[in-house]
Amino acid sequence: MASPEIETLTEALSRLPGLGPRSARRAVLHLIKRREAALAPLRAALEAVEARLTSCGICGNVDTSDPCGICRDPRRDARALCVVEEVADLWALDRAKLFPGRFHVLGGRLSALDGVRPEDLSIDLLMRRLEAGGIDEVVLAMNATLEGQTTAHYIADRIERMPVRVTQLAHGLPVGGELDYLDEGTIAQALRARRPVA
Amino acid sequence: MASPEIETLTEALSRLPGLGPRSARRAVLHLIKRREAALAPLRAALEAVEARLTSCGICGNVDTSDPCGICRDPRRDARALCVVEEVADLWALDRAKLFPGRFHVLGGRLSALDGVRPEDLSIDLLMRRLEAGGIDEVVLAMNATLEGQTTAHYIADRIERMPVRVTQLAHGLPVGGELDYLDEGTIAQALRARRPVA
Repeated sequence: MASPEIETLTEALSRLPGLGPRSARRAVLHLIKRREAALAPLRAALEAVEARLTSCGICGNVDTSDPCGICRDPRRDARALCVVEEVADLWALDRAKLFPGRFHVLGGRLSALDGVRPEDLSIDLLMRRLEAGGIDEVVLAMNATLEGQTTAHYIADRIERMPVRVTQLAHGLPVGGELDYLDEGTIAQALRARRPVA
Repeated sequence: MASPEIETLTEALSRLPGLGPRSARRAVLHLIKRREAALAPLRAALEAVEARLTSCGICGNVDTSDPCGICRDPRRDARALCVVEEVADLWALDRAKLFPGRFHVLGGRLSALDGVRPEDLSIDLLMRRLEAGGIDEVVLAMNATLEGQTTAHYIADRIERMPVRVTQLAHGLPVGGELDYLDEGTIAQALRARRPVA
């Protein structure tokens, strides 16, 4: 009975991760009831992203300019390169405000299950960036998942002969982690990588 | 570090019910990665709803025409009127495909806590519809909540002197309900309203 416009919007929203048909319907009603305060701003924000956003040809980040703001920023250390799976990971690392260098977004992770091969990721582009020189350290910042670590090993193998230092994120206790609640895998990693008390 | 366009979109999405900042960020990344398949259709659907949707001046339903499709439908029984709290309730009842009449959307429920008074709802409009005549039955289809039932009682009081039959939705076991898992309130309602086996 809802008009086709509402059905179409409900369907488009229900395809977002985290929203099912029921919550999409609630979201639509929320938007309809707040046309000025919620519907118009969301529509305008989508328009702006659709019109202005592009992928950075160097690192694969998403930004309004190509090269992106990070690749163009002269204060960034061009000698350090952090390799991540997805743009979301780049944002997460950047929120930590600790890594001073630039990034390289692979666009996924190697996965036999999902049929993702090295040529499906931007690994060749990464090799060309490294071959061009000027990079001292590559930080492999893959997720601590089986597929993420497989991807990290594959890239580490391919970089091996190059004159760059290859590092990876430390694995261990997360901040606030309580031993009693952590899985054995994490505890084993933390124990294996234990460090002398300074 | 994400561009202002992305921040704005993330914020607009995170204000939807059911989406917090984290899931909004995931939704934005999903949209950015699927510009043609997800971002453009969602933007277009929002545009269509924003441009074409209006409130029905008779019943308060949301539709592309005023009066709405239900109020204009000649196959609908004009003598039966179902009063609901919100447009979502109208849709839910209409999905059940059982009520042949028309609707009246109050736009909320009486609430001392939220400061919602009778004049904040479209109750006067409802009284005018009833005074105009031609309606035999009013179904009070408020939610089975304290506020919903308070609203139903209030409206029933005001209709009392009018020559219409006032009914309300039955309360009892929901379909598939198991006694062991239902609250005592529901079981008490079902027991109080028990009916002879046909």
